[in-house]
Amino acid sequence: MRPSAGYALVLRVTTDDTSARVVARAIEAVGGVPDGVVSEPDGSTTVHVLEVKARDEQHQRAIVEAAQTVAGVRSVEATDEVFALHEGGKLGVEPTLEVDDDDDLAQAYTPGVGRVSRAIADDPEQVWDLTGRANAVAVLTNGTAVLGLGDIGPAAALPVMEGKAMLFKSFAGIDAYPVCVDAPSVDELVAVARAIEPTFGGINLEDVAAPMCFEAERRMRSELSIPVFHDDQHGTAVVTLAALINAARVVGKRLEDLRVVFLGLGAAGVAIARLLLDVGVGDVVGCDRAGILHRGRSEHMNDEKRALAEITNREGLTGDVHDALRGADVFVGVSGPGLIEPEWVAEMASDAIVFAMANPVPEIQPEAVPPNVRIVATGRSDYPNQINNVLVFPGFFRGLLDARARDVTDAMKVAAARALAAVVPPDELSPVSIMPSPFDARVVEAVAGAVRRAAAASREAG
Amino acid sequence: MRPSAGYALVLRVTTDDTSARVVARAIEAVGGVPDGVVSEPDGSTTVHVLEVKARDEQHQRAIVEAAQTVAGVRSVEATDEVFALHEGGKLGVEPTLEVDDDDDLAQAYTPGVGRVSRAIADDPEQVWDLTGRANAVAVLTNGTAVLGLGDIGPAAALPVMEGKAMLFKSFAGIDAYPVCVDAPSVDELVAVARAIEPTFGGINLEDVAAPMCFEAERRMRSELSIPVFHDDQHGTAVVTLAALINAARVVGKRLEDLRVVFLGLGAAGVAIARLLLDVGVGDVVGCDRAGILHRGRSEHMNDEKRALAEITNREGLTGDVHDALRGADVFVGVSGPGLIEPEWVAEMASDAIVFAMANPVPEIQPEAVPPNVRIVATGRSDYPNQINNVLVFPGFFRGLLDARARDVTDAMKVAAARALAAVVPPDELSPVSIMPSPFDARVVEAVAGAVRRAAAASREAG
Repeated sequence: MRPSAGYALVLRVTTDDTSARVVARAIEAVGGVPDGVVSEPDGSTTVHVLEVKARDEQHQRAIVEAAQTVAGVRSVEATDEVFALHEGGKLGVEPTLEVDDDDDLAQAYTPGVGRVSRAIADDPEQVWDLTGRANAVAVLTNGTAVLGLGDIGPAAALPVMEGKAMLFKSFAGIDAYPVCVDAPSVDELVAVARAIEPTFGGINLEDVAAPMCFEAERRMRSELSIPVFHDDQHGTAVVTLAALINAARVVGKRLEDLRVVFLGLGAAGVAIARLLLDVGVGDVVGCDRAGILHRGRSEHMNDEKRALAEITNREGLTGDVHDALRGADVFVGVSGPGLIEPEWVAEMASDAIVFAMANPVPEIQPEAVPPNVRIVATGRSDYPNQINNVLVFPGFFRGLLDARARDVTDAMKVAAARALAAVVPPDELSPVSIMPSPFDARVVEAVAGAVRRAAAASREAG
Repeated sequence: MRPSAGYALVLRVTTDDTSARVVARAIEAVGGVPDGVVSEPDGSTTVHVLEVKARDEQHQRAIVEAAQTVAGVRSVEATDEVFALHEGGKLGVEPTLEVDDDDDLAQAYTPGVGRVSRAIADDPEQVWDLTGRANAVAVLTNGTAVLGLGDIGPAAALPVMEGKAMLFKSFAGIDAYPVCVDAPSVDELVAVARAIEPTFGGINLEDVAAPMCFEAERRMRSELSIPVFHDDQHGTAVVTLAALINAARVVGKRLEDLRVVFLGLGAAGVAIARLLLDVGVGDVVGCDRAGILHRGRSEHMNDEKRALAEITNREGLTGDVHDALRGADVFVGVSGPGLIEPEWVAEMASDAIVFAMANPVPEIQPEAVPPNVRIVATGRSDYPNQINNVLVFPGFFRGLLDARARDVTDAMKVAAARALAAVVPPDELSPVSIMPSPFDARVVEAVAGAVRRAAAASREAG
């Protein structure tokens, strides 16, 4: 793994007369990446302030030690940049109007606001024009499956949901608010979603454990009149399909000829399998800790897996993921770190495609794939071909809100994936460039436009 | 009533050659208050744009008609300013960090954010430092008693809650978010409050109908570990007590010598009665549509009124509010428009105090009070002595959040009222100046400081 800003330190190194360059070299010698050095004399000493990227927390400690042992260094004070910038959180709620005098109060608050409320009571549709609801999304979680950390609860999930809300605004201008709830059961979670519905134009369900997430989403979709989108399922499925469309194009294979093996039968795996089958991928074979999913399997099953076993693995393969990979065209990992051996991948078809999306440590390191693999993608920003939901959810919700959609359809997901894939122009497609950058402004508009058009088409059809 | 910005129109008046002054005079002739005229030639005609304050919607129509009938006026286009500025709502959710590149993503989102979540999972107290929770308040309502509009439901309540959230930020730097919920029963409302608790540092309960609000608040206070403050009760009680402290000072009466009659036995009335008794006001007599509340009364009762009957009305008065007012020192109205006749008020004691707080139309117009009344206050900004909750809730929550209080105590309310009253210096106190302006920066700090000190004192005591 490469050093990442996600583990950056700010070091204040106090020295007698050692130069910043000597300190930086010692840090580089242990693999740290120093950046932005500032040096200030402080009496008889000099203070060098360095920002240093690290690989992980152990690496952070090694970097501090390396700096401490440089000759002439008196002291090293290290601040973890990520924790420093999380102080106080990452969101503010800001009025869009000034309240500077009594007249402002009379308009934005009483008595003016009473007339606006009465207008909505008389004509409920007006809530979409006269309040922020049409641009408001709840980022709803019960904290039962947060990132790779598991069931850490709603309060510990808050930084992730704040981050998500930031991205909604930064990328798509959506006012998203984290709603981290103490609602460990499906019934409680659905009850909260139903209760808060009048405040929001859509619900982004997030980090809810499988299989609970399937039933929770199904019930919310049937009981609410605003769109509900479980990002861990559908955001991941859409971005994966987009990546697969472009990867298949690069290696010159057709989707209907592909055999795709995926590892991980949680929220993401199930949704990916369904979406790939929906667009006509040749065959999809799912695996988890209990091995290949097939109709006869009885261990580690749930309703979702049983349903999936009926429509996947046409050849009735059995065994483990290694068995499944023999001759397969595509591997999709939505599981855990380092679960795939290079030798297994070597047995895949020629021009194989590997999406190792476990975060932050992929199923197999890109450096370790054998030569039959033509395309490698991960969930990380520090390798080529990043497959990250951030390419999808901002634009997807922008489209849902713009269309005032009441539901999320499969047609929207397929359209969004195709549109996202098409953001990379044919002449820029290559084995190391199958995905656009999330900072490419065309991404949000492409995805949003596709969702809007799909919503309009289903409205006309329905 | 005076024309208010809460009913302001923007008129585009197209004329042949009539001057703006002639149009303005016609508007003034029907009682409109024109302001900020801009005139632009447009071909052979001239367009005058006038902002005009009005008294109510009927008055708005009269103003438009008056402008239309001016000689030389070709057309009048009227825009309701309050509705225009409510388009799209009044709040935005804004990131406090920039997300401009992959490094920003790695810090604010994955992988960096995962470390922050894990830190909170390991030490739950860290949520107060590493997220926005310590500064986040839910403005929670089920829309069952919105302003004077009644049970108009959660969606129609949204403009009011957005307005409240604006004021929280503008006055006290608090990130408040409207949570308008479909939760018509006490059980449902309490369940939602419990569920969302992990996201917020406090809950401002708002516009919940009596008597449901009493049980809902009581249960939330016992079941949640963050402070819950029903503003319609306690915000109103605190600001009323502050006004009474200063009014009594102006007329030279002691609180313990006062007989206070109040009309309205809903959320506000009950809370005011309890707080006044708590600080030692001589006697308090409550009235509602069924007349004076006394121990023997059996019509139109509920648990809250029964409890109040035990501690109020020491002389056992019976009859209606007119009977109660004879010889009373203070009238507090938290009821409806025009319910009090000037002749009844004339029978109050000398140097009487009248707080006619029904909004937007008071129980008795300030112009109509007889000469025995020395001080009149209303809930309106266009008369002297405005008694408005906005003087309390921003500072009160600022104090609660700063102290990381887990509950709201009576001592905090009394302290906040005394501190608010003390913002008006003794030499500025007068019959038309018993309250500070909500735009006086000392208000929030005075109230917040009082709450912080009361929280610290109860922590030491407890």
